[in-house]
Amino acid sequence: MKPEFKKILIYGLGMMGASLSLALRKRSSEAEITGVVGSSSSKEKGIKLKSADFLFTAEEFSKSPNWDAYDLIVFGVPVNTTVDVIRSLPSSFSGLLTDMGSTKLEIVRAVESVLQGEHRYISSHPMCGSEESGLEFGNADLYENRLCILTKPKGATADAFERIESFWKSLGMFTTEIPAEDHDHILSYVSHAPHLISSLMTNWVWENKCVREFTDRSPLPLTGGGFRDMTRIAGSNPKMWSAIFSSNQGEIYKALLDYKSRLDSLLSELDPEKPLDPGQWESFMEKSRLDRDSILKKQNDPKSP
Amino acid sequence: MKPEFKKILIYGLGMMGASLSLALRKRSSEAEITGVVGSSSSKEKGIKLKSADFLFTAEEFSKSPNWDAYDLIVFGVPVNTTVDVIRSLPSSFSGLLTDMGSTKLEIVRAVESVLQGEHRYISSHPMCGSEESGLEFGNADLYENRLCILTKPKGATADAFERIESFWKSLGMFTTEIPAEDHDHILSYVSHAPHLISSLMTNWVWENKCVREFTDRSPLPLTGGGFRDMTRIAGSNPKMWSAIFSSNQGEIYKALLDYKSRLDSLLSELDPEKPLDPGQWESFMEKSRLDRDSILKKQNDPKSP
Repeated sequence: MKPEFKKILIYGLGMMGASLSLALRKRSSEAEITGVVGSSSSKEKGIKLKSADFLFTAEEFSKSPNWDAYDLIVFGVPVNTTVDVIRSLPSSFSGLLTDMGSTKLEIVRAVESVLQGEHRYISSHPMCGSEESGLEFGNADLYENRLCILTKPKGATADAFERIESFWKSLGMFTTEIPAEDHDHILSYVSHAPHLISSLMTNWVWENKCVREFTDRSPLPLTGGGFRDMTRIAGSNPKMWSAIFSSNQGEIYKALLDYKSRLDSLLSELDPEKPLDPGQWESFMEKSRLDRDSILKKQNDPKSP
Repeated sequence: MKPEFKKILIYGLGMMGASLSLALRKRSSEAEITGVVGSSSSKEKGIKLKSADFLFTAEEFSKSPNWDAYDLIVFGVPVNTTVDVIRSLPSSFSGLLTDMGSTKLEIVRAVESVLQGEHRYISSHPMCGSEESGLEFGNADLYENRLCILTKPKGATADAFERIESFWKSLGMFTTEIPAEDHDHILSYVSHAPHLISSLMTNWVWENKCVREFTDRSPLPLTGGGFRDMTRIAGSNPKMWSAIFSSNQGEIYKALLDYKSRLDSLLSELDPEKPLDPGQWESFMEKSRLDRDSILKKQNDPKSP
């Protein structure tokens, strides 16, 4: 199915936005794509890489923002910037709008307070981040076979929902609908807090003198693949993640409190004063494997890694 | 360089042991390999897969253990079993011995108490685990370009150290020497505690009702690649890991206490009563990336993932 839009504005042509532009071209969309970037150096890069048909810096675009000129507007900027741009929209704006924000409540609240009555803003969260940032990391296949979570603010029309859902499906995505509060709660567990945990782990290990000393002496890192995998997302895109932490602070805090109370139980069972019961640890590991399989829906997809 | 041994005993032909056997053959060693397995079903599998030239179950082997018949003996069993087998060796045994144990202090102490005076036991830790277990997962390339940590018990000869070091190098490994206490301390940080953290994360996420409910409804998992990577090692080989936890309980406990105190600081900075300072979180993420690069010695190897 070909995307049905003639003029698309991707406001925020970073890694995700540039990938969207490339994905649309790859699917032979005839849409004319306009991209908005943050800086003139990004604009130069975008022109060189042909990341979009037309390119503006945010400053240039803000001088005469012609929102009505587009059939579809996709925000590809961090959540806080998305909220700022929503606040700058005319309250009667009836164009089709979406975003690719990692948190939903702030965005949905801004939409509901700015766009009065019926509107066509559906919030999207395509689950295909990467530790890379910048339009030079655009990847035409980024969206293929990935999940896009859709969130409907109050006042959004059913037709807008269908069209945004079809848009993502036309790029090879699967979709599911989750209300804003549940989205932010779930994402704090499966993504936001894990990013903090991953980052914390790198500080914890590297601030250990003995690890440093023997790492310096060794021809190869002292870590195995497990540690490398667990910290792959550590320190990804600091600007974007600091915006996510601010935007979902309450949920992330509660998720980490829950995590901490589980760590406390684990510690009390590991207390060296008490001998370990090997059977108990075997069950713990076995349960973990089963829980992971459930989280990753492996029963449905035995080939997934 | 070809391995120099004529008769090698691999006592414990699991994933690591079977890989060792395959790696020796691939490097066209002329060594005759004898493998010891835990059960008669593993023996049958081993015969079918030609995992070694001769195969015995541990029970069969224990009836008349002819340790002197081998130029090199490699223990590929969990640490607790390794310790038991070391205790069964004659105290005057002078053959060349090593193991592939994930912790060192228990093994080194057993060696020092059993083998009196000069001996030829050098403990090894080839850093190439996998979440798979069983001889059917043997992989001839497992050891190539990986690190092998060597630990010298008191009484081990310099010649034994050189020969064991050459043996691993002949399989394409890099080596580094770390004393037993430092090894167990370092590994609790870079491997053992992370396995527990990874497992803990799966329980924490899957015991969340909201995650379960929307995961069930969704056509794909709600997690991104980050969570999948962070939990890859969750629940790996419960028997082996429960032995590692018992064997290194004290160090793992201390490492997790250090981790917990860092989590406490993070939580106090995330407290929703206080507004976040985005600059501070950007620095936190940037430092994490640098720390990770240092741990993974990326300055030396910019291509490593």
